[in-house]
Amino acid sequence: MLETVPSDEISARVTPFQARLAEAGIGLGLMRLPADLFYYTGTVVDGFLAVPATGSPLLLVRRPKERLAAMETPWNLAFYQDLKELPTLLAESYPPWEGALGLELDVMPAALYRRLKEKLFPETPIQDLSPLIRRQRMVKSAYEIEQIRRAAAILDGAFAGAPEIIRAGLSELELAAALEYRLRLLGHQGLVRLRGWEMEMFIGHVLSGTAGLHLAYTDTPSGGLGFSPAFPQGASLKKLAPGEPISIDLGACYHGYVADMTRMYALESLPDRAWQAWDLILELFHRFEAEARPGVPPGELYQRLWEIVRQRGWEEYFMGLGPDRVSFLGHGVGLELNEYPFITARSPFTLEADMVLAFEPKFFLPEIGMIGLEDTGRITPQGVEWLTQTPRRVFIV
Amino acid sequence: MLETVPSDEISARVTPFQARLAEAGIGLGLMRLPADLFYYTGTVVDGFLAVPATGSPLLLVRRPKERLAAMETPWNLAFYQDLKELPTLLAESYPPWEGALGLELDVMPAALYRRLKEKLFPETPIQDLSPLIRRQRMVKSAYEIEQIRRAAAILDGAFAGAPEIIRAGLSELELAAALEYRLRLLGHQGLVRLRGWEMEMFIGHVLSGTAGLHLAYTDTPSGGLGFSPAFPQGASLKKLAPGEPISIDLGACYHGYVADMTRMYALESLPDRAWQAWDLILELFHRFEAEARPGVPPGELYQRLWEIVRQRGWEEYFMGLGPDRVSFLGHGVGLELNEYPFITARSPFTLEADMVLAFEPKFFLPEIGMIGLEDTGRITPQGVEWLTQTPRRVFIV
Repeated sequence: MLETVPSDEISARVTPFQARLAEAGIGLGLMRLPADLFYYTGTVVDGFLAVPATGSPLLLVRRPKERLAAMETPWNLAFYQDLKELPTLLAESYPPWEGALGLELDVMPAALYRRLKEKLFPETPIQDLSPLIRRQRMVKSAYEIEQIRRAAAILDGAFAGAPEIIRAGLSELELAAALEYRLRLLGHQGLVRLRGWEMEMFIGHVLSGTAGLHLAYTDTPSGGLGFSPAFPQGASLKKLAPGEPISIDLGACYHGYVADMTRMYALESLPDRAWQAWDLILELFHRFEAEARPGVPPGELYQRLWEIVRQRGWEEYFMGLGPDRVSFLGHGVGLELNEYPFITARSPFTLEADMVLAFEPKFFLPEIGMIGLEDTGRITPQGVEWLTQTPRRVFIV
Repeated sequence: MLETVPSDEISARVTPFQARLAEAGIGLGLMRLPADLFYYTGTVVDGFLAVPATGSPLLLVRRPKERLAAMETPWNLAFYQDLKELPTLLAESYPPWEGALGLELDVMPAALYRRLKEKLFPETPIQDLSPLIRRQRMVKSAYEIEQIRRAAAILDGAFAGAPEIIRAGLSELELAAALEYRLRLLGHQGLVRLRGWEMEMFIGHVLSGTAGLHLAYTDTPSGGLGFSPAFPQGASLKKLAPGEPISIDLGACYHGYVADMTRMYALESLPDRAWQAWDLILELFHRFEAEARPGVPPGELYQRLWEIVRQRGWEEYFMGLGPDRVSFLGHGVGLELNEYPFITARSPFTLEADMVLAFEPKFFLPEIGMIGLEDTGRITPQGVEWLTQTPRRVFIV
């Protein structure tokens, strides 16, 4: 049997969300992104979840009509075949609502938006629902943290096998494939959800030597070239060679929740400069651990960490190269890999207990490659509780 | 080195596209979906490709600025950091254009659409660019067919290993993981692109027995439950057992291009009714082969194939169950898994030479499971040239 989300967990998400709707002047929120649907219903369907500012949510299902949604979600179901039935279905279930209709404007396609706005709800003002959803999902429940812990254990399990797999002459792709295989056998769901049409990825990036210096076309520090310009990221056909940094940066999902980890490996040895970068990374981790606490603005943390890098004279190589460096040092994880909050210079949020973050300081050393470290951890009043637990060292094979 | 798309291949795509723009009254098309960017540039960046109805395209790059786009694409590059620079950059490169600004409205997020329409191009009418792109991409060049042929060969190679892997007690997930591993070693890029925010998938569906009867929340005939309602599709933890249909439906990508194939397996035996469904599927394939020719409307083909199914009394079980059946018997493949044309009752297109289609008749037999067959083939005046070439039989292990 499928392990379902406890229904009191789901109710406990919807009630505060309804308060946020009311506060924002949204009378009814209508969502359909799979990650958002799953968070507020416990299932994923082809359909919309309607959440009124007051009253009971309704899951509007187009497909599948004969399946499991009823077992997995505490909400009432209504069925439709064509989008044009939505206004009537909503009118039958809810009194005319005051305020705006909330839609996921950061991800809803423009054509669908125009149809809803111009044809189906022409009298109703429309507001963006996504900031409310993303802010709520930023702080995790105990149940959610447990799922991320299990995702982290899948990563630890797969990474534990890496030293046995890595050998000279193996290609980045062969190493990636072997690790992906382990992740799947350990229960990784495969799909790693990313929010936004500009984001795409396949499980992660396995890079070696100077292949690690090719920066991404998506908003991630590491990139790689892949093996075709059709999908220029991740493992290439380059073979692993002694003396080069080998980075493994992968995501794993358990029950929808993702954990994210990067570890370094090398055959035989690494250049001194790589070890210097590694020592600086450990220092940045210690500083992050010492300072990441509820109440701290991520912008302050960001500035202090960058200050250390500047003091040591490494700013040119940090988080990318030149204009292609990314503007964050870490990111929230949950049902998506790119959740709030981001550790950026101008984050609008303050750290709170039970935010779960991936912290990923990375250096890009010309002629050498990428040296980085990443763990997924939970903010607590006592400090960061790390969920990924593979030892923080460079594994020399 | 990366294998790049020949630049005359790219030019030969843009010239007829410009004629389509002019015909549609679009003065300038602006696109950024990775699949569309790759088709018209030969690379993927964080940025936009501007294609004027007359004149030379310009690739507007936000990230990465220092990389390979220049080597991979024949078009001039311009760099920007913030979206608000776009109107100036375009004004510097092009005279004021007549007609609409074309945007990919089927996939562009509403928030971005609103920003472009209301803030950045408030004087310019906007039109949907995607139908033009999708129609052009429907017919493949010789170069593209060669890439799909190589993707098909990856599938054939991975499926050839399936009979050795399948054994009683192995879980669907373990079988899926072993096949995914083979696909990757054979050069599958991993990511299979799907158009639309309502579509998501991880490589494919490995299903057995009645697990194959759970229909999808995406627009695909087969579904499965996965192992969490967070991602309820594909392989579950159910173990393979003798006498059940085992279906393997996977996609593989080479150089961006996808091929799609389904084959059936069974441990020891299958019920008579499953064999009857199989015989009918072979008959549908023969009919498809006999009738799919340039000039034939897919709607006619659809009706004739359904007519055979009705005559045999199998309509209740075809392409899904009850209201959850899908409305197509096949779909185009290329840079995306869900390309034009679809073989539906009311397809607006006519079959043309060098369309590449996945044809996938599938029956859903209560208490038994799913019985289906799928191949990827190219329409030619002489008939269908099948690109996937694994023998069409039920593999009894």
